[in-house]
Amino acid sequence: MNTFGRIFRLSIFGESHGNGIGVVLDGVPPGINLAAEDFLPDLSRRRSGGKGTTPRIEPDLPELLSGVYNGFTTGAPLTVLFRNTNTKSSDYDNLRDMPRPGHSDFTARIKFGGYADPRGGGHFSGRITLGLVAAGVVAKKIIHPVEISSQILELGGDTDTARAIDNITDSGDSIGGIIQCKATNMPKGLGEPFFGSVESTISQLIFSIPAIKGIEFGSGFGAARMRGSEHNDAYISVEGKTRTNNAAGINGGISNGNDLIFRIAVKPTSSISLPQETINMKTGTMETLKVEGRHDVCIALRVPVVAEAAAAVALADLLLLARASGVCEI
Amino acid sequence: MNTFGRIFRLSIFGESHGNGIGVVLDGVPPGINLAAEDFLPDLSRRRSGGKGTTPRIEPDLPELLSGVYNGFTTGAPLTVLFRNTNTKSSDYDNLRDMPRPGHSDFTARIKFGGYADPRGGGHFSGRITLGLVAAGVVAKKIIHPVEISSQILELGGDTDTARAIDNITDSGDSIGGIIQCKATNMPKGLGEPFFGSVESTISQLIFSIPAIKGIEFGSGFGAARMRGSEHNDAYISVEGKTRTNNAAGINGGISNGNDLIFRIAVKPTSSISLPQETINMKTGTMETLKVEGRHDVCIALRVPVVAEAAAAVALADLLLLARASGVCEI
Amino acid sequence: MNTFGRIFRLSIFGESHGNGIGVVLDGVPPGINLAAEDFLPDLSRRRSGGKGTTPRIEPDLPELLSGVYNGFTTGAPLTVLFRNTNTKSSDYDNLRDMPRPGHSDFTARIKFGGYADPRGGGHFSGRITLGLVAAGVVAKKIIHPVEISSQILELGGDTDTARAIDNITDSGDSIGGIIQCKATNMPKGLGEPFFGSVESTISQLIFSIPAIKGIEFGSGFGAARMRGSEHNDAYISVEGKTRTNNAAGINGGISNGNDLIFRIAVKPTSSISLPQETINMKTGTMETLKVEGRHDVCIALRVPVVAEAAAAVALADLLLLARASGVCEI
Amino acid sequence: MNTFGRIFRLSIFGESHGNGIGVVLDGVPPGINLAAEDFLPDLSRRRSGGKGTTPRIEPDLPELLSGVYNGFTTGAPLTVLFRNTNTKSSDYDNLRDMPRPGHSDFTARIKFGGYADPRGGGHFSGRITLGLVAAGVVAKKIIHPVEISSQILELGGDTDTARAIDNITDSGDSIGGIIQCKATNMPKGLGEPFFGSVESTISQLIFSIPAIKGIEFGSGFGAARMRGSEHNDAYISVEGKTRTNNAAGINGGISNGNDLIFRIAVKPTSSISLPQETINMKTGTMETLKVEGRHDVCIALRVPVVAEAAAAVALADLLLLARASGVCEI
Repeated sequence: MNTFGRIFRLSIFGESHGNGIGVVLDGVPPGINLAAEDFLPDLSRRRSGGKGTTPRIEPDLPELLSGVYNGFTTGAPLTVLFRNTNTKSSDYDNLRDMPRPGHSDFTARIKFGGYADPRGGGHFSGRITLGLVAAGVVAKKIIHPVEISSQILELGGDTDTARAIDNITDSGDSIGGIIQCKATNMPKGLGEPFFGSVESTISQLIFSIPAIKGIEFGSGFGAARMRGSEHNDAYISVEGKTRTNNAAGINGGISNGNDLIFRIAVKPTSSISLPQETINMKTGTMETLKVEGRHDVCIALRVPVVAEAAAAVALADLLLLARASGVCEI
Repeated sequence: MNTFGRIFRLSIFGESHGNGIGVVLDGVPPGINLAAEDFLPDLSRRRSGGKGTTPRIEPDLPELLSGVYNGFTTGAPLTVLFRNTNTKSSDYDNLRDMPRPGHSDFTARIKFGGYADPRGGGHFSGRITLGLVAAGVVAKKIIHPVEISSQILELGGDTDTARAIDNITDSGDSIGGIIQCKATNMPKGLGEPFFGSVESTISQLIFSIPAIKGIEFGSGFGAARMRGSEHNDAYISVEGKTRTNNAAGINGGISNGNDLIFRIAVKPTSSISLPQETINMKTGTMETLKVEGRHDVCIALRVPVVAEAAAAVALADLLLLARASGVCEI
Repeated sequence: MNTFGRIFRLSIFGESHGNGIGVVLDGVPPGINLAAEDFLPDLSRRRSGGKGTTPRIEPDLPELLSGVYNGFTTGAPLTVLFRNTNTKSSDYDNLRDMPRPGHSDFTARIKFGGYADPRGGGHFSGRITLGLVAAGVVAKKIIHPVEISSQILELGGDTDTARAIDNITDSGDSIGGIIQCKATNMPKGLGEPFFGSVESTISQLIFSIPAIKGIEFGSGFGAARMRGSEHNDAYISVEGKTRTNNAAGINGGISNGNDLIFRIAVKPTSSISLPQETINMKTGTMETLKVEGRHDVCIALRVPVVAEAAAAVALADLLLLARASGVCEI
Repeated sequence: MNTFGRIFRLSIFGESHGNGIGVVLDGVPPGINLAAEDFLPDLSRRRSGGKGTTPRIEPDLPELLSGVYNGFTTGAPLTVLFRNTNTKSSDYDNLRDMPRPGHSDFTARIKFGGYADPRGGGHFSGRITLGLVAAGVVAKKIIHPVEISSQILELGGDTDTARAIDNITDSGDSIGGIIQCKATNMPKGLGEPFFGSVESTISQLIFSIPAIKGIEFGSGFGAARMRGSEHNDAYISVEGKTRTNNAAGINGGISNGNDLIFRIAVKPTSSISLPQETINMKTGTMETLKVEGRHDVCIALRVPVVAEAAAAVALADLLLLARASGVCEI
């Protein structure tokens, strides 16, 4: 189930330490100006290397394998490929029988019967989100002039995020955080009743990002403590502008033209340098595990651009669907 | 987009005040014992009539239109139909040009160009969840021996839920709440990497329920304030039992056999008796709106069984998918 | 797998002798004028009763369960229900262990483990095409001004179809036939490369009709004996008109605006009055079977309107898809 | 719509003269022995170079980009990439305004608004079937011990196929042919009623192959001239063996364990050396077109392995689906 979408469709592939990682995008409208360089800004935002992120640095220059001709999308499937380089697979050799806490080692073993590529998390690696980010770059062009932005609200419970990183660095431990994502210039009429609601579509994609533990739209969990008279957003213009925006720009699963806003919770990085206990699957005894390798102390630092991509992909698919029914004006 | 699922598939239909509401279930395994009476316990839990819920009471006895023969599912599409009775459509006549705050009146108008059935919210009514609850009854049988239960954690911010209802009744206002849902006896290996993760699948369904504003799994938003050493669940048996369960029984999108736990935020009922302001779409002036009709002061009271149904449907589809790959033992 | 379509989607349900038969249509554009009476012409064309068809006659008046309000489609799922009446189930009691040649008795047993409804073929009955015909009525409105028509080219190898029926009636045997279906006023740009080609989409639907053994587009099997210089259709106008139409209006899977033409082969009705041999599944011995009940001596007589429906449904889905990419002008 | 399948899913990409051509396979069961060399036999059967085929010869050695580790499939998406080499794009420069008869030049222009890659047919090239053949190699391993074979029944109407090729070579013209494909050792219970019937699934894939004009199963178009007493296949064993096999091993859309047999009609290659007329889209006048480049005089020669791949892919998806419902024993 590495495929998403009804009109704008993604097929994600790759492993952390395999030959490459990429995405095939089907349903991309023809005539969109696109070059490999267009991917660099978002890729660079996703990239590791800053304080709090893993020292494994890769150029991540994509190859446009198909779907682009003379600088424009052709309407045929668009394939973006990232070659893996700078991999150190020996780091992971001692993990074969020791499922790392918080990781998918155990479930991958169940699911794929021992055939999963274990190197660097294999297909379960957060590095696979490269494909999602690449899809997001194309999706953002499709949904233009919708603008998607994101911000880190807090890290490790601290709204002073620099301080939070300073405090955790060198501790051998890790922290999580909360990200907010916003889409402005939203068209009206995106989303469908029930299983294709804006929230359903975005949340399906958001939870495909490793380390996400929760999502809330607009008033979110706070809504549970509000009264209806306070929560209801009064419509104040015939164009649909509302006085407040607890609904996050969505009523009945369908966009009303106000800003789309959601927040997501990112768990602390599972890979930590501190010793941890786990079961040895071969011997059945508890052992102490030291996870080697290069890790982010706070993966949340790299999530904003991935969350934007998830939102952009969801909106692109919903927008093309809305066009099918003649609703959408962009 | 009223269809969900890859193997176990739902097609939901109906309007609040139309001829009926129902669901077609495709991919139901043959040989499941099923009678109309089997739907009654969950339907009765969903039903209005208690304190805090609308006085509109309907028997909601389903007709099994197809897919059942001699008391067993046949493997052919299973259709469950609820006839609408006891509808008072005149209540809604004055709303045509006055979009109710918090409702989908405005977006339905955009989406369906004025052709949507406005009576009682039409296809956007919470009553459409009858079809989801019916699907849940069948899904629960498919996933046996998995057990799904739910509880109301708080209403209007108060963990004493009876008191919360007492305080809001007769105020003309409404409150929301937080529901927790849990699945025990979980098989290992359900869910798929990325877009078919357990969280992606459940959240897609959960956000198809009207009034849901957020969902979190296991440690949820709290994870954003924990350290990795605290959040990581240590595996303590070769069967996959973990010491803690911050992961909600899911690693890398795939179930590990520990309990699946999630919480959802329900907004306060949008329909309130207090006067509200809204725009008159015809005149362009703000007017005071008095929403007539029969309403729940706290729709969250009726959500638990619907959330269970969403979880059961998601797990049923994932379980049948897991069987396809030879993973699943139930 | 009783669901078809990406935008215009069908979910078919029902059994020959169960409570009813029907279809849920999702993705129907709002604002289409629709009443129960609109279904009657096509239903009457499909209906039995004429010479060569079964004497079982049913009114087949549909109920529009959902999706229609004030005489127009609402954009919500449209459900069409046909109640079964005039069923004589006792006819089929002796077949339980004797798979009828040419029928699905044996495969239904394998597929559904003995739980399939055996009465009148159950869910495998040709009567289930009622739902497809109903979908076709709506689809024809969606694709307006495309016109779909069909004709019987031959029955039992005889182009004098009345004579063919005369010759087979009272013989206890049955005959097949060849049907041609044509769509005129075709828009350009419907269909997609590869798996969504016009031919792929139509043939998927056509082979869901019981008794179909083959399909060919335009020059069809005759193309295998032509030379390229003879087969290639020269474009003779900038609008895409071609001098010949061996391509059936399709190049590279995509419509070019010329007429869409295909032919289908219908096998002779499997139910015949003549005694037949079959295996007794219980005893393992060959026995003589006399199929009782009311049968068509030539099911091909009733296929034209079903084939039109299949074509209309396929084109409706492709047309809405083409709108999504901004190609289609109707 | 370059995606096919419900469990075993293909995403095809690439252009004839672009960077490469390939396929992403999702839902591949883990633990299948697979190496790049395994693709060579079928690729070599598809390859040009023999008498009657284009002199453009490419090695077509695939790169396994993802989904294989230590010689086994991992369960993660399996990507197969073919680099394009030996391309001569200048051949196609004069075609920009002159739609070649029988080709998709005109419809590609409509569909993709002039942005389609025109070189060598771009994404519409028959070369894209490389991805389908690669998928077929994996599918054949999944469906083992089912054996799929194919044979050319006739070329240009001549059952002496060598003579047919001799006669057409150097004429500047082209011929078509008829291919038969057979699957033996078929399991029972593959396929689903209606839209997922064996015939529906195979025909959807077969018509994604360029140049196919028709398909017939078992008795096919001949069935239209048979009587029921002659056409019905008598079951002669409790395992489902039938005396004749007009049904091609399929009843009610579901396999009965007898051999699956279908025939397809391949049109004569559209690219011929003889001068042809076509419209000049810029000037609106008819002109004589001389198609340069390297072409097959009989593309049907290369179709058998592609047809096998289509059948294998269809059966693989149906087999995994059957496993989901507990039916399938292989």
